[in-house]
Amino acid sequence: MLKNELIKKLNLKYPIVQAPMAGGVTTSQLVAAVSNSGGLGMIGAGYLSPAKMRTQIQEIKELTPNMFGVNLFVPEEFKIRAEQVKSANQLLNPIRTSLNLPQQEQTEVPSFHHVLETFKEQIQVVIDLQVPVCSFTFGIPSKEIIAELKQQNIILIGTATTVREAIENEKAGMDIVVVQGSEAGGHRGSFIDEHNESLVGLMSLIPQVVDQVNIPVIAAGGIMDARGLMASLCLGAKGVQMGTAFLTCIESGAHPVHKEAILQAADDQTVITRAFSGKPARGIHNQFIADMQNQELEVAEFPIQNTLTQDIRKAASAQNNSEFMSLWSGQSASLAKKQTVEELMKSLIAEAKKLDLKF
Amino acid sequence: MLKNELIKKLNLKYPIVQAPMAGGVTTSQLVAAVSNSGGLGMIGAGYLSPAKMRTQIQEIKELTPNMFGVNLFVPEEFKIRAEQVKSANQLLNPIRTSLNLPQQEQTEVPSFHHVLETFKEQIQVVIDLQVPVCSFTFGIPSKEIIAELKQQNIILIGTATTVREAIENEKAGMDIVVVQGSEAGGHRGSFIDEHNESLVGLMSLIPQVVDQVNIPVIAAGGIMDARGLMASLCLGAKGVQMGTAFLTCIESGAHPVHKEAILQAADDQTVITRAFSGKPARGIHNQFIADMQNQELEVAEFPIQNTLTQDIRKAASAQNNSEFMSLWSGQSASLAKKQTVEELMKSLIAEAKKLDLKF
Repeated sequence: MLKNELIKKLNLKYPIVQAPMAGGVTTSQLVAAVSNSGGLGMIGAGYLSPAKMRTQIQEIKELTPNMFGVNLFVPEEFKIRAEQVKSANQLLNPIRTSLNLPQQEQTEVPSFHHVLETFKEQIQVVIDLQVPVCSFTFGIPSKEIIAELKQQNIILIGTATTVREAIENEKAGMDIVVVQGSEAGGHRGSFIDEHNESLVGLMSLIPQVVDQVNIPVIAAGGIMDARGLMASLCLGAKGVQMGTAFLTCIESGAHPVHKEAILQAADDQTVITRAFSGKPARGIHNQFIADMQNQELEVAEFPIQNTLTQDIRKAASAQNNSEFMSLWSGQSASLAKKQTVEELMKSLIAEAKKLDLKF
Repeated sequence: MLKNELIKKLNLKYPIVQAPMAGGVTTSQLVAAVSNSGGLGMIGAGYLSPAKMRTQIQEIKELTPNMFGVNLFVPEEFKIRAEQVKSANQLLNPIRTSLNLPQQEQTEVPSFHHVLETFKEQIQVVIDLQVPVCSFTFGIPSKEIIAELKQQNIILIGTATTVREAIENEKAGMDIVVVQGSEAGGHRGSFIDEHNESLVGLMSLIPQVVDQVNIPVIAAGGIMDARGLMASLCLGAKGVQMGTAFLTCIESGAHPVHKEAILQAADDQTVITRAFSGKPARGIHNQFIADMQNQELEVAEFPIQNTLTQDIRKAASAQNNSEFMSLWSGQSASLAKKQTVEELMKSLIAEAKKLDLKF
């Protein structure tokens, strides 16, 4: 039986982390089911208010005695410019018309100061409730925050999309680093040279990162079953983080239309788009992405664009209209199944034990 | 010891194919060294005249008694339009100035008819000299050509970048299919929906393809050592095709400046560009790519653009100027080494035997 550094550090049975998908996917049932099955359940708390985070963490503690974690978005400075909000809204207004939504010109957008204060409150919740694991996306938190969390013995996981980002995470004191391959669904975690869209496939990213850092590496992107797990271990990762595979599980809170879009996919139908949030993210191609194509320069930056598209995504969800929802998915959608977390974990482990390749 | 379908079909010692890199990289010494080391050496004959192909095949037969192969480009129809040649040349003329080359307006470009005739002659050389293996890039040859080659017991290998392309290759009668992940250096082999730039990472591409086809799958893209080989086998591939790893070998004919650019790379510095040939290809970012960025619509189609940039690439090579050469490379450049083919193969096999992961 495999006993690696990651399993020891996180006190897990299996080196499998459920990706912290934001936007309501990571219900308490999903997170607890993963932790109860021997993996690490993670709350995608990036968009959650501190109050909602608190409630969910307490709920999960009732549902599992095992390790679990929270993922937060590290705020990046941004400026709200009325002109940009107006032109971004002008692009979105024809879509609003088709969804019977009122036109928008100057949407109210939370300031950077407000986002930063919320982040600090989220960190305080993690400390107050002694969440065992905290992971970060879109950057590395300040030295002060890292020191505070480490003093509480909270295990810290960073996110990297390049060798350079992985090295920066290790230097900053992260205990573990998730390397996100170009295959990954949802938001790109890039934070250095992010406008170059660092899209490195896992076959290249994992071995190059493990040769340069000493902390355990978790591979993320397109991993759906035992094949992806064992391949990641061969490449030098100590475990995997799976998103799309958990998104279509019964316990996940993803919209049924979103789950169905993934379950129906034959070939890879995903693209990278900034149109939903202002940051590059991978999802299944739909009308919204098509309408916004070639307009990427007009799209507001993150998180402004995310606020601007909120009414559209909400209305589309209410109308079960997959054409205007963000259908985040990795590149392996055709391998997704409708099943319980327990079924997914059990079959994955059974297959992994069979896959005993000798050269 | 691993005994798989691919090894049997190709009569190899190891399931390792040397990628058929065009443009002078695959010297007879390189191809023969790979075949003599138990892998499959391949001539990148896409740009070779039938006469030069003939000479090289005969040379390789003198150097190895083992299996080897030839790769050909399947011609796609194109039209030469004087206006397009002129505007593509206008973009290239400032670069010509910086390299002390004369300006061009109407370069002479071989017609589609000529390209097609050359392809038929190349096929005839493969048959005449009974080359054991023939692989194809940029499409699937006609039924007639496939039937003719099969009658001669020549083993046929197709190239796919998506599940759909892999299925088409199997349907057409290919014996084996190479799946090219987004990590791969050089030209993208895409031939269906190629303008969508089908950039699927191997972690996603391999398992989805092996679930849909029955012929053996060879994985290509970013594979440099035993880790990539074993990971590919875990994912369901029967073998690997490696390009960049062989490009920096002593026996390779790549320009010393090209080899050095790869050997010096720390992080992934590659991008996909159409600027050199008219078809998307992955290479290390340099001045030529930067100059041509945002001008991709002005670039002529393949192979016209390739003919137009020939004088520039030649002059840059003669001047040892890496800024205007096509520095094709996969995303794992930092793992490349300066070594002989024998050293590469021996260390790869030794490491693969050690990598005995049990779950």
